[in-house]
Amino acid sequence: MLIDNIKTHVVGVDIRLESTTIAIIDIRGNIVATTHFPTMNYHDVGNFLTAMSDAIMNLLEQNTGIDCIRSIGISAPSGNFYSGCIENSPNFPWKGVVPLAAMLRDRLGLAVALGNDAHVCALGEWAFGAAHGMKDFVLLTMQSGMGSCIVSNGQVCYGANGFAGEVGHTCVIPEGRECGCGKKGCLEAYVTIKGINKTAKEVLAESNKPSLLRDVDTFTSQAIVNFCEQGDELAIETLRRTGKILGLGLANFATILNPEAIVFTEDLMVLSRWIMEDTYATFQEYVFRNIADKVKFTVSSLDDQTRALMGASVLAWDVKEYSLFK
Amino acid sequence: MLIDNIKTHVVGVDIRLESTTIAIIDIRGNIVATTHFPTMNYHDVGNFLTAMSDAIMNLLEQNTGIDCIRSIGISAPSGNFYSGCIENSPNFPWKGVVPLAAMLRDRLGLAVALGNDAHVCALGEWAFGAAHGMKDFVLLTMQSGMGSCIVSNGQVCYGANGFAGEVGHTCVIPEGRECGCGKKGCLEAYVTIKGINKTAKEVLAESNKPSLLRDVDTFTSQAIVNFCEQGDELAIETLRRTGKILGLGLANFATILNPEAIVFTEDLMVLSRWIMEDTYATFQEYVFRNIADKVKFTVSSLDDQTRALMGASVLAWDVKEYSLFK
Repeated sequence: MLIDNIKTHVVGVDIRLESTTIAIIDIRGNIVATTHFPTMNYHDVGNFLTAMSDAIMNLLEQNTGIDCIRSIGISAPSGNFYSGCIENSPNFPWKGVVPLAAMLRDRLGLAVALGNDAHVCALGEWAFGAAHGMKDFVLLTMQSGMGSCIVSNGQVCYGANGFAGEVGHTCVIPEGRECGCGKKGCLEAYVTIKGINKTAKEVLAESNKPSLLRDVDTFTSQAIVNFCEQGDELAIETLRRTGKILGLGLANFATILNPEAIVFTEDLMVLSRWIMEDTYATFQEYVFRNIADKVKFTVSSLDDQTRALMGASVLAWDVKEYSLFK
Repeated sequence: MLIDNIKTHVVGVDIRLESTTIAIIDIRGNIVATTHFPTMNYHDVGNFLTAMSDAIMNLLEQNTGIDCIRSIGISAPSGNFYSGCIENSPNFPWKGVVPLAAMLRDRLGLAVALGNDAHVCALGEWAFGAAHGMKDFVLLTMQSGMGSCIVSNGQVCYGANGFAGEVGHTCVIPEGRECGCGKKGCLEAYVTIKGINKTAKEVLAESNKPSLLRDVDTFTSQAIVNFCEQGDELAIETLRRTGKILGLGLANFATILNPEAIVFTEDLMVLSRWIMEDTYATFQEYVFRNIADKVKFTVSSLDDQTRALMGASVLAWDVKEYSLFK
């Protein structure tokens, strides 16, 4: 066997609404080179495929070449690991079921695996981050929606249809606030930044106290944190309420799964100083007694982009066969 | 190799408060012979071990002999599969951590596995019952408490400390009714027969209507079902409320796990005609939309005793080594 036939690297792809990032990664998780291009420039999935293939081939030509590449892993919102498809994405312009893994495989002649972004991020955190060595943990993500990935007994828990981990759509307040999903009282309706904006409106309506919140129509996570740091009582109260509801939702989550740790990603960490104390206190109040002192609250040790690329590389190393998808 | 060296059978043991049942079982799940003795006669665990060993050896002598026995599996409340111990049982007279699997192994010279009763029951249902062939399901049990076992991706989900599946202690009504566990608003506080008795008292207090419930101090599941069958409006209302709360709890459970099915055991089936319609309607209302029509409600196809013995036999066949526990 020639030395240059040994497959020493994989390609990781992180597809997001704004941007698609491509990286060449070695087996220790070192990123050798990256490139990216704007995702939303390609309203036709065929054009997107061409842009992605070209970007991968250019990156390989300028760096390791293709011969050392074993396979490709892709992280994508609405990705389905079993089918290798992006399925009914509410946000991408490509509608319906898009068999992206098979399309890229056929274009480049390399094995391709594709997974849901939350699941892929958990793989990254597991292989190279804060969850390294854990058999049972959950990873929480919070961007426009609240997602999670469950790892149980050393395996990602996908569920029967690939939808496991939708903790954001568990009900914390029966008959509560309407959620974007059409249900009532979902955790997500309270703890995303959109939900926190609604809570602020409730807090303002209940009080006559002055507040910087009164001067803004909507605010970002960083903005309300700034208000809190200036001592704004109603901003602090808003995040305390948010923390309590998050604690209740996580208590139910942990009571069902008994994870070793809940890993928070940085989207949540922006708020952490102002919500975590209430989150943890409420968590302790509502979690199953026998595990109350056993579940660690842990912070991700990877940044958002790195976590997704690392996870995509794990997917890539784990692909067993060239011909996974029809 | 002599034909009588082939291990064709295992011993399954089902330890309950009232009675300990022992069975010789073949690999197809056929029960060859059974015996049982009263558990609570033995306040000392050494005496219990002797009674159990003697019962096993007598049963073997009268039937297959010991040479064809591969190993022993035990189902026990508060059993921990990882340690082979009964741990801090609130009900057995043997306090603290009892290494029963190791004790029985050393006494009889056979490999012994021990598991939590809910987990063992799921194994039985999986190998020989309604969940046969499913990779993702949950089994619900309801006796004095509400238990469950999660099977995810073809594996029992034990959790980091063996406590996964405590769905009975998820909070369905924040700041709600006190539960025996010390927390507030647990599902178990509403759906066990003790909880249903409390709900009945609330229903009676809200209404002036006559009801058979007014003539009894406490009632069993069968008794309230009888009242419903006689058209007792307040009994029916009591079970409808119970059904709704159960549906909410199960919706959160399924939203997190995306199981193919929820398998109900007979303890719940006694009530089913009077709660299931509301349970399913509320489940549909609160479960994550993408899986609303995908989760089956299924009834166990084994009786309570058979399920535990079948599961214990699966544990026994799966024991790999003689020397599992210290």
